[in-house]
Amino acid sequence: MQKRAALNELGLSVGKKARLRRILFDHGLRNGTALFLPYDQGLEHGPRDFFANPAASGPAYVMKLAQAGEFNGVVLQIGLAEKFFWDYAGEIPLILKLNGKTDIPPDAAALSPVHASVEDAVRLGADAVGYTLYVGSPAQETDFTQYRTIRADAERLGMPVIVWAYPRGAAIESKGGKDSFYAVDYAARVASELGADVVKVNFPQPSKRDNVKPPYEEIFTPQQAIDGVVRSANRTLVLVSGGERAGDEAMYRKAEQAMDAGGLGLIFGRNVWQRGYDESLAFVDGLKEILVQHPSD
Amino acid sequence: MQKRAALNELGLSVGKKARLRRILFDHGLRNGTALFLPYDQGLEHGPRDFFANPAASGPAYVMKLAQAGEFNGVVLQIGLAEKFFWDYAGEIPLILKLNGKTDIPPDAAALSPVHASVEDAVRLGADAVGYTLYVGSPAQETDFTQYRTIRADAERLGMPVIVWAYPRGAAIESKGGKDSFYAVDYAARVASELGADVVKVNFPQPSKRDNVKPPYEEIFTPQQAIDGVVRSANRTLVLVSGGERAGDEAMYRKAEQAMDAGGLGLIFGRNVWQRGYDESLAFVDGLKEILVQHPSD
Amino acid sequence: MQKRAALNELGLSVGKKARLRRILFDHGLRNGTALFLPYDQGLEHGPRDFFANPAASGPAYVMKLAQAGEFNGVVLQIGLAEKFFWDYAGEIPLILKLNGKTDIPPDAAALSPVHASVEDAVRLGADAVGYTLYVGSPAQETDFTQYRTIRADAERLGMPVIVWAYPRGAAIESKGGKDSFYAVDYAARVASELGADVVKVNFPQPSKRDNVKPPYEEIFTPQQAIDGVVRSANRTLVLVSGGERAGDEAMYRKAEQAMDAGGLGLIFGRNVWQRGYDESLAFVDGLKEILVQHPSD
Amino acid sequence: MQKRAALNELGLSVGKKARLRRILFDHGLRNGTALFLPYDQGLEHGPRDFFANPAASGPAYVMKLAQAGEFNGVVLQIGLAEKFFWDYAGEIPLILKLNGKTDIPPDAAALSPVHASVEDAVRLGADAVGYTLYVGSPAQETDFTQYRTIRADAERLGMPVIVWAYPRGAAIESKGGKDSFYAVDYAARVASELGADVVKVNFPQPSKRDNVKPPYEEIFTPQQAIDGVVRSANRTLVLVSGGERAGDEAMYRKAEQAMDAGGLGLIFGRNVWQRGYDESLAFVDGLKEILVQHPSD
Amino acid sequence: MQKRAALNELGLSVGKKARLRRILFDHGLRNGTALFLPYDQGLEHGPRDFFANPAASGPAYVMKLAQAGEFNGVVLQIGLAEKFFWDYAGEIPLILKLNGKTDIPPDAAALSPVHASVEDAVRLGADAVGYTLYVGSPAQETDFTQYRTIRADAERLGMPVIVWAYPRGAAIESKGGKDSFYAVDYAARVASELGADVVKVNFPQPSKRDNVKPPYEEIFTPQQAIDGVVRSANRTLVLVSGGERAGDEAMYRKAEQAMDAGGLGLIFGRNVWQRGYDESLAFVDGLKEILVQHPSD
Repeated sequence: MQKRAALNELGLSVGKKARLRRILFDHGLRNGTALFLPYDQGLEHGPRDFFANPAASGPAYVMKLAQAGEFNGVVLQIGLAEKFFWDYAGEIPLILKLNGKTDIPPDAAALSPVHASVEDAVRLGADAVGYTLYVGSPAQETDFTQYRTIRADAERLGMPVIVWAYPRGAAIESKGGKDSFYAVDYAARVASELGADVVKVNFPQPSKRDNVKPPYEEIFTPQQAIDGVVRSANRTLVLVSGGERAGDEAMYRKAEQAMDAGGLGLIFGRNVWQRGYDESLAFVDGLKEILVQHPSD
Repeated sequence: MQKRAALNELGLSVGKKARLRRILFDHGLRNGTALFLPYDQGLEHGPRDFFANPAASGPAYVMKLAQAGEFNGVVLQIGLAEKFFWDYAGEIPLILKLNGKTDIPPDAAALSPVHASVEDAVRLGADAVGYTLYVGSPAQETDFTQYRTIRADAERLGMPVIVWAYPRGAAIESKGGKDSFYAVDYAARVASELGADVVKVNFPQPSKRDNVKPPYEEIFTPQQAIDGVVRSANRTLVLVSGGERAGDEAMYRKAEQAMDAGGLGLIFGRNVWQRGYDESLAFVDGLKEILVQHPSD
Repeated sequence: MQKRAALNELGLSVGKKARLRRILFDHGLRNGTALFLPYDQGLEHGPRDFFANPAASGPAYVMKLAQAGEFNGVVLQIGLAEKFFWDYAGEIPLILKLNGKTDIPPDAAALSPVHASVEDAVRLGADAVGYTLYVGSPAQETDFTQYRTIRADAERLGMPVIVWAYPRGAAIESKGGKDSFYAVDYAARVASELGADVVKVNFPQPSKRDNVKPPYEEIFTPQQAIDGVVRSANRTLVLVSGGERAGDEAMYRKAEQAMDAGGLGLIFGRNVWQRGYDESLAFVDGLKEILVQHPSD
Repeated sequence: MQKRAALNELGLSVGKKARLRRILFDHGLRNGTALFLPYDQGLEHGPRDFFANPAASGPAYVMKLAQAGEFNGVVLQIGLAEKFFWDYAGEIPLILKLNGKTDIPPDAAALSPVHASVEDAVRLGADAVGYTLYVGSPAQETDFTQYRTIRADAERLGMPVIVWAYPRGAAIESKGGKDSFYAVDYAARVASELGADVVKVNFPQPSKRDNVKPPYEEIFTPQQAIDGVVRSANRTLVLVSGGERAGDEAMYRKAEQAMDAGGLGLIFGRNVWQRGYDESLAFVDGLKEILVQHPSD
Repeated sequence: MQKRAALNELGLSVGKKARLRRILFDHGLRNGTALFLPYDQGLEHGPRDFFANPAASGPAYVMKLAQAGEFNGVVLQIGLAEKFFWDYAGEIPLILKLNGKTDIPPDAAALSPVHASVEDAVRLGADAVGYTLYVGSPAQETDFTQYRTIRADAERLGMPVIVWAYPRGAAIESKGGKDSFYAVDYAARVASELGADVVKVNFPQPSKRDNVKPPYEEIFTPQQAIDGVVRSANRTLVLVSGGERAGDEAMYRKAEQAMDAGGLGLIFGRNVWQRGYDESLAFVDGLKEILVQHPSD
């Protein structure tokens, strides 16, 4: 088992430390782990994600769920944050997602345009900002350029940056795809090199070995892979996402492996709210039983 | 029947509330519903739209019609607003459309460039601004980027933003087209996620099911579809547009369904002014008979 | 007894609400009351204030006391905040005092120059800013001018503003002095009129009636006076300060009256730390016994 | 004996730490103490200071002396820095003094105007900036205001700030004068409250007790006084200046007391260069014998 | 043997001279030569570079290695600099790399986007900045444009600029490839023409003569080639990089030739840390035996 570093050991500026500590120790299990509820799928995939549980189409429902489930924070785009966060301001941390896109156009040169600023996040009382970086996309120049402004503003304003580090685009598809250990490991490192305080990754699939760069064509267990990803991220804390809804046992298994690797926590959206309210909370309880085993200072 | 939220429940800033309340309760039926007269077709389609009723080519004629018909507001591009709004300033709300384009070039990567600023709208005494967002267009990066500035300026200046959320471009054509329930539902949600206060949509056509993403390939009634769109928009109020001129009964039918779904109101242009003056007003009276049934606070 | 308004009823923007709620419900008694520890006397009076308890000269000692005493926040100038807050960032709210002065030059035209910005407060992860306004000073033009920038920045960044509203200067001396009901009541109102979210006042002394404006020359009880001050402040929450160290019973009495008047809470510095560590905490316990009787939502 | 804190314990940003560490561990005794050579007297007093040793009128002579004496840094105004530092750039740290004045006009409302910027210091490769703050001067509003910009720029650029904290002006003269323990103690604290990384003070004279504020009218030894000043400065490091040339033994005595109090070091100008070259270096050797006894990390 | 110019002869501004002198004479061998440890491979190639020595994935390990090996500086991207440099600030010079990219997308129109600013470097206390210029890339217009801002900022702030001058892209591939004497010589000259203070080149391979421009198709020894490159760079100092790990003898040979050519020094990353800690230091000792033979003023 790899150990997660204490908050004091991460080289954080005072404002970033103040905000991250609030997220990690004044909310959720208050033990240094994190469970976030992302709710940007309405933009990223459209309302089709809400048919499994139509109530989840309503941001007010999801905010209530986030509070009842005692999440460490909820992730919103600017539009929903402007209209729905006031009711919960100060009660649950807001992570303002600063970029996003629809999934209608093709993904070969994926880029997620910026909709909001770090200053918007400050104004709304958010405790962190989120940015999607499409690692390996042919659009990386534009991506890095728009990210740079956000990193610099976040540094200036003491705002933690959570990078959704997603391998994407034609080039990564020809090098083993977006879920390989190679791709996820590289993505986590890029986030760290570019100044993310927290990086969100999909769980790596080391069995995807075709066409990956050496030595990733060798055989690694899932635990070895996620261990490697957390090490590559070094002082950038790692969140593992749930992705599309899948079986609960599989999810719990991933969650355990992520936490054993020294991950910071979990960011599960569709696996949470694509079912009834009570079922959602029951699933969350299962995740918390795992997180409670992995406290840190 | 779905119920429209009261103005107080929408998470509006003080300036946005002040201006929207003026539009909704000092004009039109003064019952919280809206009937807008859009008049940007001269840019979007060219004067060909005016041949059915040549008088409608004259902005002064249309302004007079808007006043006589007791609309809640008239939508103009900057040029007409500069030259024709003075006469009616303070008498009828102005929605300044900030972007627009001709329909001469192809639409595959549609983008509507910005011609005016939120500050122009303030200067002119407008009560809202309008922006056309081509959801799903390959040009979405530029679109989101120019929209971002408008959203931020509107937030700073307390100006309501009405987004014309139009699915458009090659990618949506290959996924069921711009009028499918899938496309319109997604477009409404995107506007909401990105901070629109009001979204204008075309009435969804759930029968357009070929190639749409699941579960939109299933069978939905028009009422179910428009109900879904209004729910997806959540605290973003929904305007349904008339589109090309069609039979009055069909129009009234759509209007009823939109209002039953909890829509804010209607935005009808060509269906109004592509006929004689008295006929126009008679048609408008029919729309108001519907709106009067759907008051809110 | 006057009732304090709930946080939801104060007309706060989302960021101000988020930050105030954190201060009032995630710290201290978590019941909507506030107990702040001000520690700017080293600048305002010099180290002479620390001789009663030399340990209190050390900011690290005072930070530890603030945490052990479970205060709702600690008030620091920029220099001490930069060097001592990191250790407690996220554990106790910081109120960054943005202006201050020495008491060496004469006070007739008192003005407290600005040393730090609202953006500094954001950067440091502070939850509020403090500003001393010398109400009635001949320097009020400069005072209001520099305050205006701070108010506007705080509005833009969602940062609560606490105004130290102190009647001061030659003119107020000739009108009954800085502690009269007249002077304190006026000062509280000025803060409210100029946009303070919270106002800190000294407890009014209605017995100081010589030369005050009518009707303040009439007889009022201390309770009537503090009731009046809280009413004058309306939706601006009221903090009562302890001032120079005095007898504990007198302090508790003032505290009770302030809370019965609907005050938000207390801001006691010298009365706290001008004694030994354990004594300080015992005194604080006494204050909390009062605050616990005055919860609000 | 009071112990000086290690560099790691001072709450320094990365840039300030990098530059201070260079000054304290790559130059001079390389043991965490400092010996600075100030050379701004040509502006502050005029060339009359150079008659005792005419060679000292030449900046090149003084630079050579600073290097031969292995000082930790030399303090220059912008003009001499521009013309004389290139020859020694990288060999001896430069402290760029950002303000200064002549002593021709009266001192009652002393203010030292700014001549150069923190950015000038960066451009010249300086490792710290110096600012004279006239504590207690009636001009304190202007003083604090111009200082604020320098503090903020220095924070932004990671540049250590050394404040010459000098009680000055009519008000302090009527409260015991500029050299009293009261005045010097207050001045050190003001520098600390306003964000100085290092404060330069004159050695306090506790025997100057007339008209000082209590409890400074009591009897203190010089060691008690300098101990108190260093405590008041807390994490702001303390430099003691030599002032006018006086007997070497008296100087050594002050130096020992300052270092025993936990001071950072000494800043001696006239006592150094108002004698011949070899004598200067001999005197410096004596100072270093004291500094070598007070290492820190 | 070509002789390296003294620092005083390079036409450096005062700030650039101060910083370069610190790098060259206060660190490493302190003899005017340089040995840098680059650690940006996590971004440029991904974590695959760390499998040979997994400990090297940890920036703290590499920082310790840099200190133990007494390098003249360590090269980091902004993210690692923010989180890992504080611990060593002032102990080892930082070269902040301002641009970088992943190697996932194709290289035909290589461009390295900018992530950080010269002001970031100043803030962090860095002593130089690094910029990768892809000489000959079809993207050279964007490259030169973004470089121009960096050069100008560096000039304004006295910060030395180290240009990684790498021939790259489709055009150079068709003219003999990126390692030919032609390509490297041209790249070194471009850096010099555009204002680099130091240029990093790969060792030229004069045997790669196919399709190069005349007269590079003639026969040159490696020594002649590197001599030529250093001459082309004139007052821009030359660093030779190690590139992919290769045999130690070959590396030492290149190092000797580079220094004989008048090079400033070496920048070796993978050849250093892709082996165990003690082995790394032993290899470094071998490099230093070469550097110690080539002192300059």
